[in-house]
Amino acid sequence: MAQENNIPDPSVKRLARYLHLLTHMKEQGVEIVSSTYIAQEMNEDPTKVRKDIQFTGIVGKPKTGFFIDDLIDSIESSLNWNSTNLAYLIGTGSLGKAVLGYKNFERCGLKFIDAFDTDKLKVGKKFFGVEVHHISKLPQLASNLSNLIAVLAVPASVAQQTVDLIVESDIKAIWNFVPKNFKVPEDVIVENILLSQSLAVLTSKIAGNKIDN
Amino acid sequence: MAQENNIPDPSVKRLARYLHLLTHMKEQGVEIVSSTYIAQEMNEDPTKVRKDIQFTGIVGKPKTGFFIDDLIDSIESSLNWNSTNLAYLIGTGSLGKAVLGYKNFERCGLKFIDAFDTDKLKVGKKFFGVEVHHISKLPQLASNLSNLIAVLAVPASVAQQTVDLIVESDIKAIWNFVPKNFKVPEDVIVENILLSQSLAVLTSKIAGNKIDN
Repeated sequence: MAQENNIPDPSVKRLARYLHLLTHMKEQGVEIVSSTYIAQEMNEDPTKVRKDIQFTGIVGKPKTGFFIDDLIDSIESSLNWNSTNLAYLIGTGSLGKAVLGYKNFERCGLKFIDAFDTDKLKVGKKFFGVEVHHISKLPQLASNLSNLIAVLAVPASVAQQTVDLIVESDIKAIWNFVPKNFKVPEDVIVENILLSQSLAVLTSKIAGNKIDN
Repeated sequence: MAQENNIPDPSVKRLARYLHLLTHMKEQGVEIVSSTYIAQEMNEDPTKVRKDIQFTGIVGKPKTGFFIDDLIDSIESSLNWNSTNLAYLIGTGSLGKAVLGYKNFERCGLKFIDAFDTDKLKVGKKFFGVEVHHISKLPQLASNLSNLIAVLAVPASVAQQTVDLIVESDIKAIWNFVPKNFKVPEDVIVENILLSQSLAVLTSKIAGNKIDN
């Protein structure tokens, strides 16, 4: 499994997309698939698709392709989606709850086991079956678990202090939905997903188009 | 307003993040802000921040900075967030509904006016006050409106046919949450936001780290 560490981010992102296609094809009863077919369906360059698949370590049959089950396994293994990634939701506002309720993440091996908030009125409640704890309980609850993912969805104003607590709790992976930079030690992985930034790119281009019209 | 068309995507994304900070500062009663302070708070290079702000067309006072209200206005105008961007939600599954329910998008000028689905059981229902129509009604309902944004959250298997219908309906901007490439004419703007791809980057890195440990 040593190759997993070396797959470049753009290939990882494409592999995640191929997986959607392959899962769908499998549901339709397809048993064998070629990288050329995947390339066609995804509107991608066939050479790029072949290279992405090679990163996962699978070897196909010449002129035939891959058994779809094997290819799905190989990609899921590379993405670390065939093992369960336990996650804490930090911040249970509207975005946090949306993430918690989005069932597709389970397919990616993401399993929320606890949620945290500073709001005492929320503590003890359950959202989508996941219990909310006071944020001060984070270090204690995290102490018995390894390889936790903290899904960060707190207000930007408390991002750094919350991240500091996450780091203190020895959590090494943060999936960040908060539109603010923060500092973490080098051994902590942060992956940002910022919806309003993506929307800004779209709306600013619309503004440009309006001027052109 | 001609400069709006020329702001590079990375600057647009940073401007969206500065706006979060500035709105928060304004709520705290701050009236004047310098680009150096913004750079510090965002952990960004001050020269980069100054350049980003210049793109919006605002001129600050030397050695003082910007009136926070003026700077907010200038950024919002550049991002096209001070006018309302009417949006259709296409696909009302769990992700679609999460997007619909996320109130922060209203601050970005995004206003959902209608939702569409193929599921006849959903047609006529309202989610978060927004009525669901059958997808076949899209061209007719869109025909009276300009500058619509289609927020795409359908299953990947029907992405292309849904996009074809969006294009036929003369909608020129698609905010895409579906993990599949599709073809659009050159004058249609597509901005992708793919949650599972971002998660894949994180989980594959965790897998890498596990090996290192």
